[in-house]
Amino acid sequence: MKQKRVLILGGDGYLGWPTAMQFSAEGWAVAVVDNFAKRQWENLCGVAPLLPIRTLRERIDAWKDHSGKKIESHFGDICQVEFLEEVFRSFRPDAVVHYGEQPSAPYSMRSREDAVYTQVNNVVGNLNLLFIIKKYNPRCHLVKLGTMGEYGTPNIDIEEGWLEIRHRGRKDRMLFPKKPGSFYHLSKVHDSANIEFACRIWGLAATDLNQGVVYGIHTKETRLDPSLATSFHYDHVFGTVLNRFVVQACLGVPLSVYGNGSQTRGYLNINDTLQCVRIAVLKPARPGEFRVFNQFTEQFSVQQIAEKVRLAALQMGLETKIQTMPNPRVEQLNHYYRARHTKLKELGLKPQLLTGAVIEEMLAVALENKHLANLQIIHPSITWK
Amino acid sequence: MKQKRVLILGGDGYLGWPTAMQFSAEGWAVAVVDNFAKRQWENLCGVAPLLPIRTLRERIDAWKDHSGKKIESHFGDICQVEFLEEVFRSFRPDAVVHYGEQPSAPYSMRSREDAVYTQVNNVVGNLNLLFIIKKYNPRCHLVKLGTMGEYGTPNIDIEEGWLEIRHRGRKDRMLFPKKPGSFYHLSKVHDSANIEFACRIWGLAATDLNQGVVYGIHTKETRLDPSLATSFHYDHVFGTVLNRFVVQACLGVPLSVYGNGSQTRGYLNINDTLQCVRIAVLKPARPGEFRVFNQFTEQFSVQQIAEKVRLAALQMGLETKIQTMPNPRVEQLNHYYRARHTKLKELGLKPQLLTGAVIEEMLAVALENKHLANLQIIHPSITWK
Repeated sequence: MKQKRVLILGGDGYLGWPTAMQFSAEGWAVAVVDNFAKRQWENLCGVAPLLPIRTLRERIDAWKDHSGKKIESHFGDICQVEFLEEVFRSFRPDAVVHYGEQPSAPYSMRSREDAVYTQVNNVVGNLNLLFIIKKYNPRCHLVKLGTMGEYGTPNIDIEEGWLEIRHRGRKDRMLFPKKPGSFYHLSKVHDSANIEFACRIWGLAATDLNQGVVYGIHTKETRLDPSLATSFHYDHVFGTVLNRFVVQACLGVPLSVYGNGSQTRGYLNINDTLQCVRIAVLKPARPGEFRVFNQFTEQFSVQQIAEKVRLAALQMGLETKIQTMPNPRVEQLNHYYRARHTKLKELGLKPQLLTGAVIEEMLAVALENKHLANLQIIHPSITWK
Repeated sequence: MKQKRVLILGGDGYLGWPTAMQFSAEGWAVAVVDNFAKRQWENLCGVAPLLPIRTLRERIDAWKDHSGKKIESHFGDICQVEFLEEVFRSFRPDAVVHYGEQPSAPYSMRSREDAVYTQVNNVVGNLNLLFIIKKYNPRCHLVKLGTMGEYGTPNIDIEEGWLEIRHRGRKDRMLFPKKPGSFYHLSKVHDSANIEFACRIWGLAATDLNQGVVYGIHTKETRLDPSLATSFHYDHVFGTVLNRFVVQACLGVPLSVYGNGSQTRGYLNINDTLQCVRIAVLKPARPGEFRVFNQFTEQFSVQQIAEKVRLAALQMGLETKIQTMPNPRVEQLNHYYRARHTKLKELGLKPQLLTGAVIEEMLAVALENKHLANLQIIHPSITWK
């Protein structure tokens, strides 16, 4: 059987790098693309991941040492169409996993410049990709990372991308109406609309993965060696809430809950991200299909997450307080939240739920690396107003 | 009473220029902004408006001669934030009417470059405007030109921007789900989403005018003198369907209907555009309100429009054929179409409907200028595939 080929955009990132190793381990031909913009944004904001992250080239070399497998890499910006075109033409992917976007809501809310940059960077890279797929291989399956934050917190159940609407005695299947919470989330909404159009007009096949909040430090492959680590963020710009709480618990400072902590979101383990992306790639959308999966496994309020971390820390002898603080974001509190997430399970996802043991393992890794943590980069300095 | 101030972005355009004269005639302080990009796109595509259009400066001078009133003008690109910021700070508008975008669906479908350009140009200009309004005067009312084409042709009634959705026993008021038909239409969808967010998070006041297909050559003010004319387009890039049919009838060539002509859309007279914009400005949205009006007065199929032009031409002794041709666009045929458009009427709009007399007047002007028309620029050379 012909070896399958997957191209991973944003292959130097928190999720991109473990995804690349996963497919490589399973025998796929893997190429990664990155312009290392994320490392630049980190420097700009003065934040860094907890564990030291080797350069992409070093990680690729380390992966080759461990697995005997080669990951191809291309340095460049997907907003530069000639670059992406050349990569696509030479690598000839069967699937593209597109993580290559500015991924932070706070970053997009720093200033007008950052809002504009986020939307232009994300929308143009994605448009370039759509045109290149159309031109060179319309059968190439696009797996695009979206976010559950595109939906916001509507007062109705959130469906997976599409909604059957009955209105004045008639009905239609429409894109689920969205209420995104930042210029970053809006960029993903724009992307989704552009992709749906490309599927509808050109017959492209795409899967939009509306992902929840990811937590976790290690995947099967990153555990093999410290030099394979991925960029675990706990800071106020790129760190997600559970990851941040884990580091706060280790540092012996209170877990900082924004507002009253009633904000409810979908969550998933980084290992489940890998599972979901794998499932999406192995079972592709049909030509012309714009398929949307809600990619999370459980939903919690921020307060519940804080409580879980507090209890797990207590198990390890760490006394932790929970402290509320003024919310830097503008978001609804005490809202309804119920989001469907059955499609990935129907295709075989076996969730790894957020147990005490999972948090304890995260705490153990964070404790080991506690001396590397920086308390100063946790407090939010970017506000929505 | 203090003189009210309106800033018009895209003030050199088909609708922008007559809008500027209308507000000026009514005693408003008016400033227009344009970078003349539209005139550049015309040259790029090798198309031109039917009537000779003076430069903006000449038209402003002519308007001063006729009315005694001064329209302030600023040359520049609203994607350059410092430029727009300086205009906003110096002029201090109470309302901004934003026509300043790339307005053609075919133009956006010419190539990847043009799709990317259209989305970046439109989205960035609009984002800049939102940030500037927030910074300098959050009470300034934004009147943004959208398009009915954002909705596409859903199988349910189209409401005015928002939809009360009942789903699994719960309900919410959501943005009406959209199915736009080109990268241009998508740019307007992105704009609308960004504006709704700015209203929700920052308390801005905005009116999004989802406009139908505009027809007509003259407004009250353009009739005063040929040097005040506005840019009537009949070409395949910027010309709307009724305007194109009128010129085809004058040239004695068949009216070219794309596909079977069953495509149904909302239409309005250019004079009603002016009325609607005036109403929106005089009766502004509330702080925090993202208000959407569907701005059209009647809906017709393309076949019906062709038939109306044929009959009006016949009244004037012009024998005209209707000819169908392969559709360069990808769009639904024989679709359901029913779009609500009551809000502007409730606020006082008195529609000028598409009577034979209206078409005959258009035909008369086109006939007078028939020698200026170019048959070569009517045939569509841009396809959606």
